[in-house]
Amino acid sequence: MPHRSAYEPTADRRTQRRLALDRVVTPEMQRVAEREHLTGEQVRAEVARGRMVIPANHHHAALDPMGIGLRAGVKVNANIGSSPTTSSPAGEVEKLTVAEKWGADTVMDLSTGKDLDETRTAIIEASTVPIGTVPIYQALEQVKQPEDLDIGRLLEVIEVQARQGVDYMTIHAGVRLEHLPLCQHRVTGIVSRGGGLLARWMVHHKAENPLYEHFDAVLDICREHDVTISLGDGLRPGSIADASDAAQFAELDTLGELVQRCWDADVQAMVEGPGHIPLDQLEMNVRRQQQVCQEAPFYTLGPLVTDIAPGYDHITSAIGAAIVGWHGTSMLCYVTPKEHLGLPDAEDVKEGLIAYRIAAHAADLARGGASGRRAARWDRKLSEARFAFDWNAQFDAALDPATARAMHDETLPNDHFKSAEFCSMCGPKYCPMHNFRDVDWTQLADVVAERKRGRQAT
Amino acid sequence: MPHRSAYEPTADRRTQRRLALDRVVTPEMQRVAEREHLTGEQVRAEVARGRMVIPANHHHAALDPMGIGLRAGVKVNANIGSSPTTSSPAGEVEKLTVAEKWGADTVMDLSTGKDLDETRTAIIEASTVPIGTVPIYQALEQVKQPEDLDIGRLLEVIEVQARQGVDYMTIHAGVRLEHLPLCQHRVTGIVSRGGGLLARWMVHHKAENPLYEHFDAVLDICREHDVTISLGDGLRPGSIADASDAAQFAELDTLGELVQRCWDADVQAMVEGPGHIPLDQLEMNVRRQQQVCQEAPFYTLGPLVTDIAPGYDHITSAIGAAIVGWHGTSMLCYVTPKEHLGLPDAEDVKEGLIAYRIAAHAADLARGGASGRRAARWDRKLSEARFAFDWNAQFDAALDPATARAMHDETLPNDHFKSAEFCSMCGPKYCPMHNFRDVDWTQLADVVAERKRGRQAT
Repeated sequence: MPHRSAYEPTADRRTQRRLALDRVVTPEMQRVAEREHLTGEQVRAEVARGRMVIPANHHHAALDPMGIGLRAGVKVNANIGSSPTTSSPAGEVEKLTVAEKWGADTVMDLSTGKDLDETRTAIIEASTVPIGTVPIYQALEQVKQPEDLDIGRLLEVIEVQARQGVDYMTIHAGVRLEHLPLCQHRVTGIVSRGGGLLARWMVHHKAENPLYEHFDAVLDICREHDVTISLGDGLRPGSIADASDAAQFAELDTLGELVQRCWDADVQAMVEGPGHIPLDQLEMNVRRQQQVCQEAPFYTLGPLVTDIAPGYDHITSAIGAAIVGWHGTSMLCYVTPKEHLGLPDAEDVKEGLIAYRIAAHAADLARGGASGRRAARWDRKLSEARFAFDWNAQFDAALDPATARAMHDETLPNDHFKSAEFCSMCGPKYCPMHNFRDVDWTQLADVVAERKRGRQAT
Repeated sequence: MPHRSAYEPTADRRTQRRLALDRVVTPEMQRVAEREHLTGEQVRAEVARGRMVIPANHHHAALDPMGIGLRAGVKVNANIGSSPTTSSPAGEVEKLTVAEKWGADTVMDLSTGKDLDETRTAIIEASTVPIGTVPIYQALEQVKQPEDLDIGRLLEVIEVQARQGVDYMTIHAGVRLEHLPLCQHRVTGIVSRGGGLLARWMVHHKAENPLYEHFDAVLDICREHDVTISLGDGLRPGSIADASDAAQFAELDTLGELVQRCWDADVQAMVEGPGHIPLDQLEMNVRRQQQVCQEAPFYTLGPLVTDIAPGYDHITSAIGAAIVGWHGTSMLCYVTPKEHLGLPDAEDVKEGLIAYRIAAHAADLARGGASGRRAARWDRKLSEARFAFDWNAQFDAALDPATARAMHDETLPNDHFKSAEFCSMCGPKYCPMHNFRDVDWTQLADVVAERKRGRQAT
């Protein structure tokens, strides 16, 4: 069993949102307050306002509650999950462990294929972080083709997963039939799995999105178990050419309506976002989501700021993620180097998380507030160790201590050099920090003053 | 010998700046115009205005001229160079080849140690891109300690390197004695090699920076051979805590004065910049440089947006580089994963360049203009291939085709799957692009219209 924080979960079966509206500061809110350096009342007010969610399913016993929202630090989600060909509960629990180790704040289990319930149960039991899912995947496993899906099956899967303890679920209720013609001439059409499945279903049946039509039934289940709804962006742009287009924003308007419906039903809600967006449209995308969705937490995939670098999309997207995080995105869904190419393995999970911890940290620094001050202390600690040539302290403070140490040591011949007051980049003679320390600061002020007097005299 | 473009270098020994002011469109300007999709007259006007430089030493025979400036695409520089322990001209030419292969627009030879002239000559002979140096390094090799340097030796080295064909030189003339007290209480003091050496020299000798005092002599040499001066930022911040401080901006003011002195002497000039800067101060830093330095090209090292990730500083800095590129930085000096830890090897050179090609490309996309349109066509080409499941075309369009192909293929069992209309990330049943293509678009418009009519009737 994972480490469990000191907090005792509330026995009250109302949702965190309802309790917040009823002015109750729950143990979950108190725990989030502690982690975010806020007061319990501040957290309660944010949850009541819908500007923060605490995904905390009543049945997720191992959970250490965390908050996602504008007043909290920027969070990172890691996607894991088996595929039809590679699938074992133990393998996915292993990826969960890697994800938690490298700082994932939440983990989505996107498994497809066999043993889905068993895998999910194993992950939830092992996880101290909230677990998210996309229930339509499991529903699709039970039928031959997307056209065979129906709302009864979708609701059944949602209920099963809710009872298992899933903390938040992506529900693609915002993809509507009338939006689809807006996608037809896109460069990359639809790139969301759920969006693609529902589009195919709607056109085949000449009918509206069943998750939109029956959204109240979805809300009833989520309210009962306090599942946070993550409103999926089935029409997110999948290329720079499609960024910020009519389809994307038509769906966003529907997501804005659905946020209000979640809130009216006492269900917590966040909103998923793009995708592929060029640098100059990032801030606008965050502002528009905040306006349309009344500041419900924004949860973006990247965004990637260019399409040209498959194999390096953890970098193309960390750039976008840092910027949208700074402008107010509350959670960043990581992208691994394998994005667009294949299913990530444990090493990809690590690479993706490192890039996204960097992005989230940089965003916290720029946002300021309690999280920003905490972030700045970390930067200062590392830089003070660097300037003191305390290599061990510098590596300890690094995001990935082992990698930093290995890179430093590999270029130096022996232990004497490995602890020296320089590194192989400059050597002792050129090391600027070394030269700086050799300056006689005590006489510098006098020298400068003397020269100034000299100049004034002439 | 490297590939040489069709252009024939001008025989006129005036500098590109003087010729531009004399309204001559040189073959070098014409070649830059061709590469940037501008007219020769547009390039001439930018060079005359000082907003673009064409580093093109009269003695660099293999050079294919390129331009650095606001109206050109964002450029990337790669630093290579031997250290006192690992030094061979052949090894550095190898790194140059790697740098050119992965898209370096200029290369700086930062060699220290032995055989400096031999290494530099080999690099210049082999290089089609401009070569930059920091002459104070070679001067330091000739003395025992920094205090032994003198202006005679510095000018001698500058002249030797100018005659060898160095296209641009970093001259740390902006670090002034009176700025030094502003650094004393910084978290990381001085982190520029040249800045650290000169600080030590100035305090020891109680004298002003010799490169500042004798800047006219430096200009005389640079004018004779058309060496572009890259005004070094010896006091750049080396940590987030020191970003945008008084020392940095005091030096920037001096760099602004020196830009004008370069221009008055017909010498081309660009200005080096930070360093470590948090996200929210990046745009301000670019605007301030543009104002103080009259839009002389800005050439930044990163900047890194956090200090906490040694081992991953190609990522922390690519984030900052993309943003400052978008706001108007003209050249981005790459940072490799080894930054702060050790001397980069050929693999680090590649990793650094990939991250910076991504940053420069994302900046071009956001800046628009001729370079932005060209960049957007590349993104579209890759995404069209992706949507068509033309894997070979997608890999061919990728920044690093071999890596993209390897990541795709490694997770698929055989050739049949490797060319299939899906990948191992989703498989065929979930592939959104696959499902999108199966939609019957011809009847969609009718379905939507019918439903709208139905809604209006009720």
